[in-house]
Amino acid sequence: MSVSPLVRNEIAHLAHAELFTADLGGSLWFFQTLLGMRETGRQGDSVYLRCYEDPYHHSLKLTAADQPGLGMLGWRTASRDAFDRRAVALDKAGLGTGPTDGDLGVGPTFGFTSPDGHPMELVWDVEKYRAPESLRSPILTRPSKRPLQGIPPRRLDHVNLMASDVTEQKTLFEQTLGFGTRETVVDGPAEMGAWMSVNALGHELAIMKDATGSRGRLHHLAFWYGIPQHNTDFAEICREYGVRIEAGPDVHGVTQGAFLYVFEPGGNRIELFGNTGILQFEPDYETRVWDLKEFATGAGLAIGGTTMPPEFMIYGTPPTAEQAGMVTGRTVGALT
Amino acid sequence: MSVSPLVRNEIAHLAHAELFTADLGGSLWFFQTLLGMRETGRQGDSVYLRCYEDPYHHSLKLTAADQPGLGMLGWRTASRDAFDRRAVALDKAGLGTGPTDGDLGVGPTFGFTSPDGHPMELVWDVEKYRAPESLRSPILTRPSKRPLQGIPPRRLDHVNLMASDVTEQKTLFEQTLGFGTRETVVDGPAEMGAWMSVNALGHELAIMKDATGSRGRLHHLAFWYGIPQHNTDFAEICREYGVRIEAGPDVHGVTQGAFLYVFEPGGNRIELFGNTGILQFEPDYETRVWDLKEFATGAGLAIGGTTMPPEFMIYGTPPTAEQAGMVTGRTVGALT
Amino acid sequence: MSVSPLVRNEIAHLAHAELFTADLGGSLWFFQTLLGMRETGRQGDSVYLRCYEDPYHHSLKLTAADQPGLGMLGWRTASRDAFDRRAVALDKAGLGTGPTDGDLGVGPTFGFTSPDGHPMELVWDVEKYRAPESLRSPILTRPSKRPLQGIPPRRLDHVNLMASDVTEQKTLFEQTLGFGTRETVVDGPAEMGAWMSVNALGHELAIMKDATGSRGRLHHLAFWYGIPQHNTDFAEICREYGVRIEAGPDVHGVTQGAFLYVFEPGGNRIELFGNTGILQFEPDYETRVWDLKEFATGAGLAIGGTTMPPEFMIYGTPPTAEQAGMVTGRTVGALT
Amino acid sequence: MSVSPLVRNEIAHLAHAELFTADLGGSLWFFQTLLGMRETGRQGDSVYLRCYEDPYHHSLKLTAADQPGLGMLGWRTASRDAFDRRAVALDKAGLGTGPTDGDLGVGPTFGFTSPDGHPMELVWDVEKYRAPESLRSPILTRPSKRPLQGIPPRRLDHVNLMASDVTEQKTLFEQTLGFGTRETVVDGPAEMGAWMSVNALGHELAIMKDATGSRGRLHHLAFWYGIPQHNTDFAEICREYGVRIEAGPDVHGVTQGAFLYVFEPGGNRIELFGNTGILQFEPDYETRVWDLKEFATGAGLAIGGTTMPPEFMIYGTPPTAEQAGMVTGRTVGALT
Repeated sequence: MSVSPLVRNEIAHLAHAELFTADLGGSLWFFQTLLGMRETGRQGDSVYLRCYEDPYHHSLKLTAADQPGLGMLGWRTASRDAFDRRAVALDKAGLGTGPTDGDLGVGPTFGFTSPDGHPMELVWDVEKYRAPESLRSPILTRPSKRPLQGIPPRRLDHVNLMASDVTEQKTLFEQTLGFGTRETVVDGPAEMGAWMSVNALGHELAIMKDATGSRGRLHHLAFWYGIPQHNTDFAEICREYGVRIEAGPDVHGVTQGAFLYVFEPGGNRIELFGNTGILQFEPDYETRVWDLKEFATGAGLAIGGTTMPPEFMIYGTPPTAEQAGMVTGRTVGALT
Repeated sequence: MSVSPLVRNEIAHLAHAELFTADLGGSLWFFQTLLGMRETGRQGDSVYLRCYEDPYHHSLKLTAADQPGLGMLGWRTASRDAFDRRAVALDKAGLGTGPTDGDLGVGPTFGFTSPDGHPMELVWDVEKYRAPESLRSPILTRPSKRPLQGIPPRRLDHVNLMASDVTEQKTLFEQTLGFGTRETVVDGPAEMGAWMSVNALGHELAIMKDATGSRGRLHHLAFWYGIPQHNTDFAEICREYGVRIEAGPDVHGVTQGAFLYVFEPGGNRIELFGNTGILQFEPDYETRVWDLKEFATGAGLAIGGTTMPPEFMIYGTPPTAEQAGMVTGRTVGALT
Repeated sequence: MSVSPLVRNEIAHLAHAELFTADLGGSLWFFQTLLGMRETGRQGDSVYLRCYEDPYHHSLKLTAADQPGLGMLGWRTASRDAFDRRAVALDKAGLGTGPTDGDLGVGPTFGFTSPDGHPMELVWDVEKYRAPESLRSPILTRPSKRPLQGIPPRRLDHVNLMASDVTEQKTLFEQTLGFGTRETVVDGPAEMGAWMSVNALGHELAIMKDATGSRGRLHHLAFWYGIPQHNTDFAEICREYGVRIEAGPDVHGVTQGAFLYVFEPGGNRIELFGNTGILQFEPDYETRVWDLKEFATGAGLAIGGTTMPPEFMIYGTPPTAEQAGMVTGRTVGALT
Repeated sequence: MSVSPLVRNEIAHLAHAELFTADLGGSLWFFQTLLGMRETGRQGDSVYLRCYEDPYHHSLKLTAADQPGLGMLGWRTASRDAFDRRAVALDKAGLGTGPTDGDLGVGPTFGFTSPDGHPMELVWDVEKYRAPESLRSPILTRPSKRPLQGIPPRRLDHVNLMASDVTEQKTLFEQTLGFGTRETVVDGPAEMGAWMSVNALGHELAIMKDATGSRGRLHHLAFWYGIPQHNTDFAEICREYGVRIEAGPDVHGVTQGAFLYVFEPGGNRIELFGNTGILQFEPDYETRVWDLKEFATGAGLAIGGTTMPPEFMIYGTPPTAEQAGMVTGRTVGALT
């Protein structure tokens, strides 16, 4: 990694994400009834939700829209000074869109886009979640009790973005925001994917080549169980309650993450993450490079017997015209 | 085992149990809100519940009473003829209490008591559970969808009875009802415990010496997860929602069962069973005999590091006068 | 089920199996080094192995041969009388091949074939395994200590046979040997598969239509973990040590079994069974019938996201001429 | 946390530990035969071992000695500059013991002691582990294949030190080495324990009050499974092969870590860590403070039913004169 020490440790973690959904009611059923996330606010066409170990007001904002896709990604900086420094750097990179007034539970932010056009923001001022008495857990590091509803994930984990140019995207996150690149996939000279992190996680941000040539699309947003069995439990729930499973439960070789990919009714691909994947502590870690051939047929995509369906490589949100109707997150009449 | 071939295979399995509860509302909160059991009927002071893989109308009947304890155990016979034959045999043993009209979802039964006085019945005619459309599972061997509430067990598993005379109790079940004895614990010549089954399970019936000299008490009723992680999940729920955990999650050496013992608010000890334990298929299986000393300090009670609390050996329901208030299943104000 | 009470409970369980292997060294590496099974004897071209909770001398006999396939299946009867009665019945059905002298650890048997020609035998006299002092477990129901080698399964679980005529095969096992049929798959009037058992297990015997028109072939032999995580552990081992994974870990809707299918180096398909599947205790259980379409695309073959590869439906051992070289159980140089 | 930004991110992680053992053969049997760690070197009275995902030459050095205890803890810095800066700071704090020539696989170090006298060193130059061809994994982030021996942990996780003065110890690690304090336990004004980390882990260093008044003792060293089932698997192995289990498997409320404590034959307490515990990403995280009473009887020490044995609070290595013989890691004759 050629990341300057001056840039490292400036971003702390992925704090929140906004998803557009073409079926807000269906999406709420998915995230609240099946995944047990709790609502913490409503405003306009948006509903705010959090997992029981998310530290802030919300980690997910669902907003009704014509098309599914990514509305916003919020990266929390390591300090107020880091916020200021990164804003300057993003402006210098020509990607800054300027300060905003923030949102429910979120103070002033600095907006920017990824080189591919994904909407993002830096944030320092956030509202820490304080549970009401009835939801307070005797486990002090847990901001709220484990829900009794569905198979509840513990926190927002990571995001996977499709990009027209993986290298350009990766370089911005390395050079301007201080991400370390843990693993990449290459097809000859071309970079096809990258897994990046600002902390010990195997990735908080992944980038995959968008073979359709589209720009700024979302591949998936991931929530964390940390416990392998819960991926199996949720797959069973999806099967019984009519949510379409795309792949898994299985384990990726890349990141060593235990995955389950499903489509929420609003059309977005959601991953449930059933372990911690590989944690990385070496300060001079060298990026691991997969060859695309080995990646696709070897341990890269799946350690077990899973063959990823072709749509996994091309479907993103918003879908292209050809992809409209490619996935259906909810079977008719499945809402019970 | 000295069980006559004529007696074997006459009892099919444990079909239902009735528990008395001193706090019906608290017990319903425990079994419905935390364990996700579904109500299938109400009558008088009783509520009928089932787990999602229980085959019949109900597996648990909760009845309001002054004291916790066992109301009834229903053993389903292998056939109508077996029902008739076992009724005759129980009458001959002096334990029959005669035919009954049955109950919600239960046809005519033949009542009897164990030698120690535990209320029991034989049943052949039962109402098979048929789920309404919305609860029907695409998994055909599953009578109803897995609930989205709490950490739901799959079926009633077994019962553990305290008895003033273990050998007398065991002999009746061997000779008159055809149970096989898988394991016993002895203290010199005295039998202190026995684990018995009519099928491949390690036990559907356990008997433990009641050191208080009481008769006809219940040690615990057990429900089946089959998945070790779910015992850990439920322990976490109990801790956060104020249910008292007595011991576990750990694994018994006896039966190899993954256990979690908790007290439901009504005062009864409930076990959650997180694996299948040892399955037994040998037709000429020889009973394994534990010495009490090795049992208590060796692998018998726990393979892991658990030391069973002293109350595990003496508390049963109904509690003795000295045991009143010994356990509290619910922390005040914990109902949320 | 139309099984006569006179036939029920005559067969106790699947006691042993013989596999032919085209690579005895490779097969031994698979079963001993990766699966931790222990050798209990050698004779001629055969090696005898057992899992640590198998009750008898061996559960698996590996025999060097030109082609992989099934050498023998040994069904233990419920008693000596049942042995005699079933032998008469098999002779009457025209399938008996007469008494044999037995084998290492196996007393006299009565040989027969399935209607499709699979070699089988009834056995009553078996040698119970007695561990040497150093392998004796403090867990009394465990015949020997859990091995420290590989990811060891606990016992032989079940067998899946391909057959040219599923109904003919099923009927023999129902009428002559007393198996209950738990689930079937039908394509219009044609039976495509059946899952059968003589005890509480979801199946000890499965039958699948052989689309190649071959007779007497083996689909797979299964060993039992009972713990879901161990299927994931073994998949990882297979990936790292060069064993080809066909499908899984995932869970079948049929039998609710947690499966992992791999090819052992000798060419046979082996399943690892990571839970207990559905247990069945109802004496008047009604066979569940899957429609082939729902079975293949719905929950039948996989509750999770697995798509079974086409070879799963057609490959059996011995392979047909077209199937030679279709699977390779071992990557060259992988033996370490 | 009042840690200056100048001090943060200077230490990367716990890189290696040396344990003294009074039974080197027994300790090697424990770490190699039961835990599957691989030897990477031998020198003098020392053997060097690593887990299969440890990044460097070794994570554990076992050295024969009269008494068990901690020989050395190696903290890797975030950079060469950080190494120099921290060495100066430690000298200034009066705790530096000066540069050393390093060890097998370890370059020059800077030695120091904790305020309580625990031997430690900073290190930047380390030998990255490069597996021979036969041990190379197709999973690129995994430095070597998962072993086929025992129940192998993946990496060194954390250390727990007993100290005569918790606050003094904690303050040094906060102020001089930049550790964040995630959780503490207090008894009125007195600090009884602290859990500290330099990264997202819930702790890489814990400090517990030494009630015996001894100085510089080790409470335990922990290795990481990350998978809850593996703690249960290893408990079973310990029970069958004669290793004394102190407590667990269960889950601490503090750190949310899934624990199993056992005594290795050399006399040291070893923890196996079966999940990831709580991960912490908030840059302005506020230390959680447990009251000793709630900690001991509430969720702090165990979420499940475990009561920690009294020795857990007082036994450390080297043992005091009174503690000699308090634990026995190996049952006589258990080595098989």
